[in-house]
Amino acid sequence: MSKKPLILVTNDDGITAPGIRALIEVMNDVGDVVVVAPDSPQSGMGHAITINSTLFVEKVTVGKGKQEEYSCSGTPADCVKLAVKQILDRRPDLCVSGINHGSNSSINVIYSGTMSAALEAGIEGIPAIGFSLLDYNWNANFEHAKPFVKTIVENALENGIPNGVVLNVNIPNSTEKDIKGIKVCRQAKANWEEEFDKRKNPQGRDYYWLTGKFVNLDHGEDTDEWALENNYISVVPVQFDLTAHHAIQNLNTWNLND
Amino acid sequence: MSKKPLILVTNDDGITAPGIRALIEVMNDVGDVVVVAPDSPQSGMGHAITINSTLFVEKVTVGKGKQEEYSCSGTPADCVKLAVKQILDRRPDLCVSGINHGSNSSINVIYSGTMSAALEAGIEGIPAIGFSLLDYNWNANFEHAKPFVKTIVENALENGIPNGVVLNVNIPNSTEKDIKGIKVCRQAKANWEEEFDKRKNPQGRDYYWLTGKFVNLDHGEDTDEWALENNYISVVPVQFDLTAHHAIQNLNTWNLND
Repeated sequence: MSKKPLILVTNDDGITAPGIRALIEVMNDVGDVVVVAPDSPQSGMGHAITINSTLFVEKVTVGKGKQEEYSCSGTPADCVKLAVKQILDRRPDLCVSGINHGSNSSINVIYSGTMSAALEAGIEGIPAIGFSLLDYNWNANFEHAKPFVKTIVENALENGIPNGVVLNVNIPNSTEKDIKGIKVCRQAKANWEEEFDKRKNPQGRDYYWLTGKFVNLDHGEDTDEWALENNYISVVPVQFDLTAHHAIQNLNTWNLND
Repeated sequence: MSKKPLILVTNDDGITAPGIRALIEVMNDVGDVVVVAPDSPQSGMGHAITINSTLFVEKVTVGKGKQEEYSCSGTPADCVKLAVKQILDRRPDLCVSGINHGSNSSINVIYSGTMSAALEAGIEGIPAIGFSLLDYNWNANFEHAKPFVKTIVENALENGIPNGVVLNVNIPNSTEKDIKGIKVCRQAKANWEEEFDKRKNPQGRDYYWLTGKFVNLDHGEDTDEWALENNYISVVPVQFDLTAHHAIQNLNTWNLND
């Protein structure tokens, strides 16, 4: 039996995306790799799970390399659940998700399928990291990301990720020599200002496209947005205990039980 | 112009669900109500948003009462975005989501469409509360929940909800006289142990149904699970800054930039 770590690889752009191919290539250098990823793009799915329809899984050969691959009809969170409970014959030592085509920094973590897969693994007690590149293009260049991804993964395997925490890693769209380093950050208090593009369909019925611009009013230099703007790779520890502990005292002053 | 608070009501079970009807009835007593809710059930959608397809909105009359209602083809998060940016002519004073048919306590908050709507409103800076009843049935009885929902909403309007926080309220499946009161809690460290029910379709292809049981290994008496088991209504303050601030120091000891 291999002494290499078992690494589960997934994503939300779908099993054929160049981003997951780049991640698989790096992971093949680090451990034994099993890929369980959606058969089609799932971006913007948030932490969806499939409870009202069936899930199909198929063993496939998509790219080169020694990894084992499975294509799944579900969401990123479904892929992780299926991998852990049904496909893998032992617990993975690490789950990595991505590399996403597009940023999951700041508030985007909430909408992110990439991070929902990592969070799902974290909930299962498996160390997990989501990787995203700040380039939405299908033909984005992932080359410069590879050595940094490897460094972060090797550190995670060696040091262990703190309990109840998963890592949200975002990578500037840059070159290897221009990237200044890796920075541990907090999530910036930024958000989207949505606009709806209102149109009429050929039958005369109104419909909308969701658009918007990202607005960062957080000027802290310890945020992921600051790091990315300054050509650092950002690493934000993310938790799935959503309790706002600091607010409990305030709420206990409310008049709830008179 | 009315001096009553403007209350946006949404949910994830769909605009015709009995749970949202109960919530609308209570809200009509408190303020001016506009309903913008999905035209079909969206449970388990997590924090999904619709970025790759069109959104339709229709003014509808579903139930009795003085509320204005809009049915939307999107997710709960889409409904909130559309309401705030497109439908409402002023900012709502409060957004309430639910009453969900089924629990959103503990780790379920992560998968919850009900809470994703509340979180979306919170991100927009609108005070927001998600309500859920511990009964998955379409014909669940919401009567006993109504006075408690009203108390919590009136407190929220009077005291304000702390910045960056939304409330996750879960209500036992009980009677008004058996409910012991309302308790401010933290999210229990509980999770699902999934099992996949593997079957063959008529063409002989394997497929899976996601099933599982909820396991609570957290014995704290300050958790939402404890409150609910002891017939209290649980109120958990939930945040959308997911940073695990306590883990930053540990991660800074990693060897990321050698």
